[in-house]
Amino acid sequence: MKKKIIQVFSKIKPIKGLEINTANFGIKSKNRNDVTLISFQDLANVATVLTKSKTYAPNIRWLKKIRNHGTAKVLFVNSGNANAYTGKRGYENVLQIVNKLANLYQCSKENILISSTGVIGEQLPINKIIKLIPLMYSKKNKNTQNWTSFAEAITTTDTFPKAAYRQTTISKKKYSIIGICKGSGMIAPNMATMLAFLFTDAKLSPSQLSKMLKSSLQKSFNNITVDGDTSTNDMVSIFSINNKKSDKTKIPNFSQLKKFQKDLDEVAIELAKKIVIDGEGARKLIEIEVTGAKNDKQARNVAFSIANSMLVKTAIAGEDANWGRIIMAIGKSTSVINQETISIKIGENFVIKKGEIVKNYNEKKVTKHLKKDEIFIYVDLLLGNGKSKVWTCDLTKKYIEINADYRS
Amino acid sequence: MKKKIIQVFSKIKPIKGLEINTANFGIKSKNRNDVTLISFQDLANVATVLTKSKTYAPNIRWLKKIRNHGTAKVLFVNSGNANAYTGKRGYENVLQIVNKLANLYQCSKENILISSTGVIGEQLPINKIIKLIPLMYSKKNKNTQNWTSFAEAITTTDTFPKAAYRQTTISKKKYSIIGICKGSGMIAPNMATMLAFLFTDAKLSPSQLSKMLKSSLQKSFNNITVDGDTSTNDMVSIFSINNKKSDKTKIPNFSQLKKFQKDLDEVAIELAKKIVIDGEGARKLIEIEVTGAKNDKQARNVAFSIANSMLVKTAIAGEDANWGRIIMAIGKSTSVINQETISIKIGENFVIKKGEIVKNYNEKKVTKHLKKDEIFIYVDLLLGNGKSKVWTCDLTKKYIEINADYRS
Repeated sequence: MKKKIIQVFSKIKPIKGLEINTANFGIKSKNRNDVTLISFQDLANVATVLTKSKTYAPNIRWLKKIRNHGTAKVLFVNSGNANAYTGKRGYENVLQIVNKLANLYQCSKENILISSTGVIGEQLPINKIIKLIPLMYSKKNKNTQNWTSFAEAITTTDTFPKAAYRQTTISKKKYSIIGICKGSGMIAPNMATMLAFLFTDAKLSPSQLSKMLKSSLQKSFNNITVDGDTSTNDMVSIFSINNKKSDKTKIPNFSQLKKFQKDLDEVAIELAKKIVIDGEGARKLIEIEVTGAKNDKQARNVAFSIANSMLVKTAIAGEDANWGRIIMAIGKSTSVINQETISIKIGENFVIKKGEIVKNYNEKKVTKHLKKDEIFIYVDLLLGNGKSKVWTCDLTKKYIEINADYRS
Repeated sequence: MKKKIIQVFSKIKPIKGLEINTANFGIKSKNRNDVTLISFQDLANVATVLTKSKTYAPNIRWLKKIRNHGTAKVLFVNSGNANAYTGKRGYENVLQIVNKLANLYQCSKENILISSTGVIGEQLPINKIIKLIPLMYSKKNKNTQNWTSFAEAITTTDTFPKAAYRQTTISKKKYSIIGICKGSGMIAPNMATMLAFLFTDAKLSPSQLSKMLKSSLQKSFNNITVDGDTSTNDMVSIFSINNKKSDKTKIPNFSQLKKFQKDLDEVAIELAKKIVIDGEGARKLIEIEVTGAKNDKQARNVAFSIANSMLVKTAIAGEDANWGRIIMAIGKSTSVINQETISIKIGENFVIKKGEIVKNYNEKKVTKHLKKDEIFIYVDLLLGNGKSKVWTCDLTKKYIEINADYRS
């Protein structure tokens, strides 16, 4: 399943006016690149959504400060060190990087975005970073636009680089949407840092980007994590590379952006599912669809109650048709439901219809479905029209191995 | 740690007027007893707290129906089959057992309590049960009061039988409090069925039992599970064995019951901690104390956010002083906090004071503490006087092994 995913990179068409530089600063390891500079020839329009964590990292503090600025010259991303919970010095280090980059790229500080992921509670090797940034800068214009190198340089425990790509159209003109992300923790109920960066050559305003990004998040990244369950450093940004100063193309109306929104949704969902697939130790993608809830919020609540159940996730890891755990997870959700109207399907197989096990229930068929890479759990509550779809992964011994040893 | 616990049984002093019968009905396995009948010579006063699950089992439906009855003649407990989500037939089977027992013991149906734990979604072998109950009944008066046999007969994946015992006093007269429980699932965020039964020879009214039981639960069983995160079959009952018909002892006033409440709390906390210690695959008991919250509710919310964090639990399994994960877990709680006022202690070692890592932070000392069987995490939010204490266990590979294979 994972191999199929990597092929995406070869499909990506470069976007003019954007440059990717990656380097090894020795933050993560000796052999893997850990710093990326994405720079824009002209200022790009940008919108960003940040973590809801109350223990957000210093770089997030900086991004909160400049959030409404709307344009970007440089995106700096480092992996291996989240620079989280590093106190005053942690924030001063962010400002040092911002100053250095603003100076080199001759732009205002508000046009510098900083993103970090990795271990919490350790200071960045700031002297090294400040020393090495100019070397990286001097190599600009010498690289091809290597999206794979960017996707690899931002990974931490990820087992593969993650991208999604769509060609889209606005008023019959063709544009690209490129998405790159990292994240491999057990996304729900806890979360390793999730970073996602989206790029398009369509000319869109910061407010359009913001509105469309939020809409896509509701269908993608927010459906692999519980509301509020975010890491200290999570962020998702979308950039509109506005490279043609001379380009007199008007910014389109929202009514012209339906196809774009749909394609952006698809890119975001593809990225989100890749994070789930790469869940630490995961072997199976689990899609949970809840329909017939009183409203979408209730559907989401029940879906997440199943998705976050360790007992459900381990049963699926064991390919065990233990549907009782799904019932337990529905029962423990905070929603008011009626157990006598529940129907459950695993794969194509009904297990429960209106509160009773189906007469011709065939456990072998369910077990056969559970042996697949992608598992579907469908729940109908028969109470209304609310629906929700969320994704999670199975919980294996490998998860414990990775997480009990992350720092060593 | 576990061996120490088993010694409790030898300390328990029998309570007159109560009989324990256990038997093997072949529900759980060929070799282990799986049915218990606790019968009371005279009607015992009783109070019960039931699961909040919306997919509660048929026996819980029965208990909800008779909840306010207040007296009990027989407690029937079976393990190996939860009789949960078994539809109409599941409830009819409960009624069959109730009728049979009421008939044998010549009491009203409302005096029969039924408790079940085990696999969800399978019908009880009801014919066998109805056939074997009279055989068990015929053996009554032939057993000694064997609390160990009761504690063992109600276990499922438990690795040891669980009991707690206190001698208490009411107005200088001595009484016993005996507690027996089962439960070994990963209690939070999910839950295997937790059953607890408390017995005292103190003469207390159903309303006194109910009030004191609820108070104890708030300090014990409710602090090892998240509100509403309960299994389909959870229940806790307390019985006052009122065997002396001729006894003219008055029911005491609440003011005389302070010592009793304290001892009941201790029994409940001891049982709750034993469930946590026996968490599937667990090797360490983790106590999380949060102080300085705006109120107790906020303290509890933050404590559970840490206790339920798979990343914290795996770090502790790995004896890794990764305090960043505690920060992450505090940050993702739904409470409004200020990251600059947080202090964290692991064991006796301060790691963070008012938002900054302590200058003389010594990771070796923290690692040394993490090698122990009992881990203490202390968080001060410095916002007010709210406090809470919760317990959880580490998350090991063994947990996955047990849960991926539970039914096979």
